[in-house]
Amino acid sequence: MNEKGLSAEKISNAPATKESLHIIKIGGNVIDDDNALASFLKDFSTIAGKKILVHGGGKIATSIGDKLGIQSEYIDGRRITNDETIGLVTMVYGGLVNKKIVASLQALNCFAIGLTGADVNVLPAIKRPVKEIDYGWVGDINAEDINPGTWQIFLENGMVPVLAPLTHDSNGHILNTNADTMSAVLSIALTKCYRVKLIYCFEKNGILENVDEEASVISNLNINFYHQLKKDKKLYAGILPKIDNAFHAADNSVDKVIIGNSKDLLQMVNGICGTKISG
Amino acid sequence: MNEKGLSAEKISNAPATKESLHIIKIGGNVIDDDNALASFLKDFSTIAGKKILVHGGGKIATSIGDKLGIQSEYIDGRRITNDETIGLVTMVYGGLVNKKIVASLQALNCFAIGLTGADVNVLPAIKRPVKEIDYGWVGDINAEDINPGTWQIFLENGMVPVLAPLTHDSNGHILNTNADTMSAVLSIALTKCYRVKLIYCFEKNGILENVDEEASVISNLNINFYHQLKKDKKLYAGILPKIDNAFHAADNSVDKVIIGNSKDLLQMVNGICGTKISG
Repeated sequence: MNEKGLSAEKISNAPATKESLHIIKIGGNVIDDDNALASFLKDFSTIAGKKILVHGGGKIATSIGDKLGIQSEYIDGRRITNDETIGLVTMVYGGLVNKKIVASLQALNCFAIGLTGADVNVLPAIKRPVKEIDYGWVGDINAEDINPGTWQIFLENGMVPVLAPLTHDSNGHILNTNADTMSAVLSIALTKCYRVKLIYCFEKNGILENVDEEASVISNLNINFYHQLKKDKKLYAGILPKIDNAFHAADNSVDKVIIGNSKDLLQMVNGICGTKISG
Repeated sequence: MNEKGLSAEKISNAPATKESLHIIKIGGNVIDDDNALASFLKDFSTIAGKKILVHGGGKIATSIGDKLGIQSEYIDGRRITNDETIGLVTMVYGGLVNKKIVASLQALNCFAIGLTGADVNVLPAIKRPVKEIDYGWVGDINAEDINPGTWQIFLENGMVPVLAPLTHDSNGHILNTNADTMSAVLSIALTKCYRVKLIYCFEKNGILENVDEEASVISNLNINFYHQLKKDKKLYAGILPKIDNAFHAADNSVDKVIIGNSKDLLQMVNGICGTKISG
């Protein structure tokens, strides 16, 4: 043991074939809907083997912020995180949302543990440098900075990490971090020890060739097809960062990357729903 | 490994003499004062060996609750925890306060991990039965229900648990739990594996024989002396539950129990400040 976690090499007794690890990301559409969340968590709790849940924030941060007189500010769809806002999201994402999910999973006999990137330094980050835009207390993370050994302590002891979209700067500040990006980067880091399957859950059945038609799900999306769809302006702008994160993971040793509907979680685990991203 | 944590027997390779563990509790007077908190955490980070920090809530929950229109309600000095209040304290204690402490400790190279009782079921509780008073979402805990094996996973891997005053009912609900009681009960549970020293930090230099005179610190308090002081009405009512918790710990195998000033933490660790409770 050491102060900053075990090294991956020291505690890994990895067999020739790496063990499977599911990293599942859910967003606001599930978190904001009590019934949808309960149904999703029930499905999640039944997934066999090692797993990690990454959650986004949801609208509840905005509604609590409104009551507290904290204005939400966005540039290019990204929240600007001032002093008041980082306090708000630390409370709501790290406290209210995270512990609600953990307590619900415990009731389903799922051995959940809530984490932010600050907890045992599982996700060290760097405050985003100010260029054209000052994003405030926003953290950027790199796969190489993540110590898989610390994650192994949890996973090898049967724990199920539930990760809030918060990191830290190692100088005592919590940082707001996009949950899609976090899921991709963490997946890449953990490929050193596990065969990682990354599943992005959202409100659509997958990437749609025609955004108005749920039946137009693309089963397999490779980079050429993606470029073509972007060129033809067939994809709505909001989905592009998610797809970019998905390709980043698929291009960096993540075994499978799937984007689909949170209602179809178990089918996606079995590879029969959603859009498979081919790196 | 199993779904509810390792058993203490299985992973303990306890030597004949148990290893030392410090359990330190801080309350609102430190949490509400940024400078006092920074100074306390710096001291805490230098304590050698295994340690756990338990924190209370502080006035910030009340001030945020006021802004959100949530009324604080008390009976006999205990907060009544309705639906809105449990959401509030989950946010503030489990999110804002807990993660601020964790991030600050990380900056001091202390391998802190924030926990509530729901996380990997470290503190299972029972919702307090309604008798004369309905306390709402308040949890009562018993030392026998705590699995020391789960705590050992953290402690034996060099982690420093930072515990918010929240538990859970195993049915998906977070429960509010008094931090003084939590510290005593957790200390008792962990005596199975460690030689536990429990230190209660508050704003006085110890238990005072004359409440208006800081110099009147009682160095050693045994149960007979305590009964005499109560009979003579020398102690103010607010301190009695803390002293009762301290005696509960001292009477149940906790090696040392000390009550004193958070400014004197390191002196208390060395046994040269505060009031020693003799069980």
